Amino acid sequence: MFKNRCRQIHHGVFLEIHFCTSNKGKFSEAEKILNKYGVNIIHAPLTLEERRSESVEEIAEGCALRAYSILRKPLFVEDSGLFVPALNGFPGAYSAWVLGKIGNEGILRLLSGAKGRSAEFRCAIAFTEGKEVRLFTGSVRGRVSESIRGNGGFGYDPVFIPEGGEKTFAEAPSLKDSLSHRAGALQKFGEYLSTKVK
Amino acid sequence: MFKNRCRQIHHGVFLEIHFCTSNKGKFSEAEKILNKYGVNIIHAPLTLEERRSESVEEIAEGCALRAYSILRKPLFVEDSGLFVPALNGFPGAYSAWVLGKIGNEGILRLLSGAKGRSAEFRCAIAFTEGKEVRLFTGSVRGRVSESIRGNGGFGYDPVFIPEGGEKTFAEAPSLKDSLSHRAGALQKFGEYLSTKVK
Repeated sequence: MFKNRCRQIHHGVFLEIHFCTSNKGKFSEAEKILNKYGVNIIHAPLTLEERRSESVEEIAEGCALRAYSILRKPLFVEDSGLFVPALNGFPGAYSAWVLGKIGNEGILRLLSGAKGRSAEFRCAIAFTEGKEVRLFTGSVRGRVSESIRGNGGFGYDPVFIPEGGEKTFAEAPSLKDSLSHRAGALQKFGEYLSTKVK
Repeated sequence: MFKNRCRQIHHGVFLEIHFCTSNKGKFSEAEKILNKYGVNIIHAPLTLEERRSESVEEIAEGCALRAYSILRKPLFVEDSGLFVPALNGFPGAYSAWVLGKIGNEGILRLLSGAKGRSAEFRCAIAFTEGKEVRLFTGSVRGRVSESIRGNGGFGYDPVFIPEGGEKTFAEAPSLKDSLSHRAGALQKFGEYLSTKVK
């Protein structure tokens, strides 16, 4: 099925897959990584209704099926969140919505006086060609910084410091590119796709 | 259609309608008010998947249709939320989920140093007999208190002071019964139902 959709570009074989997201930052991240695996991604800026769930995997899976019912082409969607144990997993799978309401300032305020600042970014990529959905996940542990730092990245990047580091993802975007939750999931996804073009 | 479902109890005519909620506090509130209008409500503790929306009306409407597809009997559902302008409407239609994560303590922490503490409770009741959905809404303005006070009520009641008052809803449950957002919506709903038994 895939072979039919391959395009010969220069001397490499490229797969074309739609990435359904309204977030340009996520699209750029995915493009950089998947191109290395010989995959050409096309931006499909669909706004998809997400189900209410605490799990990024469940949300991504549901969105992939809804997106396929519209596009009818091989596609993937991504869902990710910041999970803070001291806040019972908040903002979790509602991270984007929460960020739009209370911002990174709100997260810092909630953690003032909290027991511990550990946090985990989780990402789930859901890929489908229509029937089944294949999931690829990634995560990175770290902690919430004491202040908002850095201009790179987006979302919670200015308050997230990966384990063993001192800089936030927004202060070290190249570090983020290599070890973020999304990079981890995209690399697994890229490896899977690269087996399909051999 | 309704007349067939009426029961003669003592000397009054009672309607029987299912209230789909997993919240016993909400059920008690509704029972107290709707009984005055000659309506007997039955607790249907369904857990319904809610759509993601910023609007309590939209959420209630969607849930009513989903509940009807299961029960196939006249029913209503309710959705409500606390909307805080200084937090861009947070926690809004996600109030129950947010409360479970960060509690009333979290709301107070978020408002420390915020510009203003005004807040509004909104409630939407969605009633259906299967085809169309009829909405009844209520709201009450007030402010978020500086501390958690009182043992009555539930949810955000210990931090909500209605306009013109000094006590939180949790400190004055009888005040809440008469002027809350849910009371307002239930009274409109009761009036509508009472016209159906005449």
